[in-house]
Amino acid sequence: MSILESICTNLDAIRSKRPLVHSITNYVVMNETANAVLCIGALPIMSHAKEEVEEMAAAADALVLNIGTLSPDWIDAMEIAGRRANSMNKPVILDPVGAGATAFRTSSCRRLLESVKISIIRGNAGEIAALADIYSEVKGVESIAAAQSPEEIAKTCAAKYDCTAAVTGQVDVVSDGCRVARISNGDAMLGRVVGTGCMSTVIIGCFAGVESDSFMAAVGGLTAFGIAGELAANESGAKPGTFHVELYNALDALSSTDIRSLARLEISV
Amino acid sequence: MSILESICTNLDAIRSKRPLVHSITNYVVMNETANAVLCIGALPIMSHAKEEVEEMAAAADALVLNIGTLSPDWIDAMEIAGRRANSMNKPVILDPVGAGATAFRTSSCRRLLESVKISIIRGNAGEIAALADIYSEVKGVESIAAAQSPEEIAKTCAAKYDCTAAVTGQVDVVSDGCRVARISNGDAMLGRVVGTGCMSTVIIGCFAGVESDSFMAAVGGLTAFGIAGELAANESGAKPGTFHVELYNALDALSSTDIRSLARLEISV
Amino acid sequence: MSILESICTNLDAIRSKRPLVHSITNYVVMNETANAVLCIGALPIMSHAKEEVEEMAAAADALVLNIGTLSPDWIDAMEIAGRRANSMNKPVILDPVGAGATAFRTSSCRRLLESVKISIIRGNAGEIAALADIYSEVKGVESIAAAQSPEEIAKTCAAKYDCTAAVTGQVDVVSDGCRVARISNGDAMLGRVVGTGCMSTVIIGCFAGVESDSFMAAVGGLTAFGIAGELAANESGAKPGTFHVELYNALDALSSTDIRSLARLEISV
Repeated sequence: MSILESICTNLDAIRSKRPLVHSITNYVVMNETANAVLCIGALPIMSHAKEEVEEMAAAADALVLNIGTLSPDWIDAMEIAGRRANSMNKPVILDPVGAGATAFRTSSCRRLLESVKISIIRGNAGEIAALADIYSEVKGVESIAAAQSPEEIAKTCAAKYDCTAAVTGQVDVVSDGCRVARISNGDAMLGRVVGTGCMSTVIIGCFAGVESDSFMAAVGGLTAFGIAGELAANESGAKPGTFHVELYNALDALSSTDIRSLARLEISV
Repeated sequence: MSILESICTNLDAIRSKRPLVHSITNYVVMNETANAVLCIGALPIMSHAKEEVEEMAAAADALVLNIGTLSPDWIDAMEIAGRRANSMNKPVILDPVGAGATAFRTSSCRRLLESVKISIIRGNAGEIAALADIYSEVKGVESIAAAQSPEEIAKTCAAKYDCTAAVTGQVDVVSDGCRVARISNGDAMLGRVVGTGCMSTVIIGCFAGVESDSFMAAVGGLTAFGIAGELAANESGAKPGTFHVELYNALDALSSTDIRSLARLEISV
Repeated sequence: MSILESICTNLDAIRSKRPLVHSITNYVVMNETANAVLCIGALPIMSHAKEEVEEMAAAADALVLNIGTLSPDWIDAMEIAGRRANSMNKPVILDPVGAGATAFRTSSCRRLLESVKISIIRGNAGEIAALADIYSEVKGVESIAAAQSPEEIAKTCAAKYDCTAAVTGQVDVVSDGCRVARISNGDAMLGRVVGTGCMSTVIIGCFAGVESDSFMAAVGGLTAFGIAGELAANESGAKPGTFHVELYNALDALSSTDIRSLARLEISV
């Protein structure tokens, strides 16, 4: 089956199987990421209490850990949930928001990467570079510049943590250390709404809930999300408030036809 | 006065008296439920610190407890606030999000129901069944199937906790153990936006802030919210992002004329 | 340079320098205020862990403290971040949400004002009156009535804490104890969406990130935000859901031409 057909099959599976995506995520985007999961067809659940995260992770089809407004007890809960997901062979996706911006964020990500087997890491170039020990410049949670190309950053991170690494930006690059995908979908409007990076991570989580190949889940999630961004931009012009609303509409309406006709995807080995 | 006229009177009272509705609720829907309260005409307040919840509950006209992203200290605060509301004869409304999904959620609800006199419980069939010791199947916070009908679940829960129980779904069923209401308003689009269940609970809270009969408050809140959902769906077609925006517009614009012409409500004793 | 030209220059600087605005704020408005910051052209960062707030405050150009859903550990973090911002001469803006509504809110604000040098306080008449020891009446986080005029409240608060005080309402009044500005921009629709007060505070934070005169930063932020509110109302009529979306569009599209043609601003000494 071709890559595009595989993405279409996974999108259909999300709508028919409705995987439960458990997020332990930041306060800023909880509603937005839950709605993104629901719009594409999966079921969101948010839960962070140590008393229940194991049970929730066990019930879920994928676990997304996002450190955007981290504190020590939330990192503890992420570790507990992650280990339980590992024990049941469920995929764990990490969004290292602001890694590199503060020592606490970088060290918390490293701690999670040591104690939990992470399937997929999705971040901007600065965040992934920080985890891959590559020099980069960040401003808050924005990536300004990095010493290496997105391909090199993704491959180095993937090799270091034996995972799939997705570096998102103008072009999204995904690597599992061997395969490399370049996804040229998306729209500049995605950078003008808070939390679209976090949304792309949970959409990867939806794909990971139905696709056991992590590389394919990351490629599918980012392709689908990028195309939804383009469709939303078509409806909203340069208006960020309207774009935000149309992004949910587009995730909901996204079809296999859209994937087949709009995907701009290259894969090399 | 007929049921419909009573709902209209209460809607007017919400707009003129502007009851203060204090919510201790989950992170995912804080903004959305606060806006729902404001749009229908009441005043929202969110506050969860043990240091101030008694004072806030005392100042408020209704207290809404929602366990959607619970942790032990938040449950403590709910108990403190609930007892204070009880001592002042103010209505307390419980939204048992995810009861039945984890042991922690179910036991936290039971603890609240033991220590606080709850006036109204609003949940889906799975959640209310879990509290009523009726078998059901849940997936995250979604109800999949239950061993009994919504009517039976509502009546059993109402009798067990001496409260009004509202089981929402395709048809909403409200019972105080004696009276039973069936409300056929609402739209399938409500299931495609995160937090509409939580919103329906705070709208019940607005009605409870001006109506001392808990059964009537629950019936009024769900009828009003269901009609707002229909009006919003008329404006947004099948687009969930647009529907979310139109839902606030509809709550704001909702009129007695809408209630009288659109309510689909049966009450039996 | 005239006041209006100075506001236009600062608006341009926000778009070109992209100041990093660090908020420690309430759960209800985190997404909304982050989007407001991003829409006007600055960069938002949300972070509250004691482990990293000093580092984040040091990296930021302005720090906004908002006590809307306060708890003791968050106030601790605000104090730590505020002291670090002070040590680096970075502006600290306080939004005393609900000061006067509970003893805990009032005392937490006083503690912050004693331990941190606050540049600008922005609140409604009731909140600022509570901090200035002027009698007022509040209902939740709404101001109902105050014993003195907004001008007197702003001047008293500014003198008491040696800061700029901004009292927002139908007319916004800003004073640094010497100068007084009256801004008649804005629209009644701003009162029908949750968190627009909090948004106005972060917009002041954006201006403070590029303007060292706190009085001018507050005047610029409130003028810009008020005009954005008017432009949004023009697009949305009386619909609060639509207005909320259009407010982001308007912040994004706001131009110097809008400032010059629409500002309704008087300054006296």
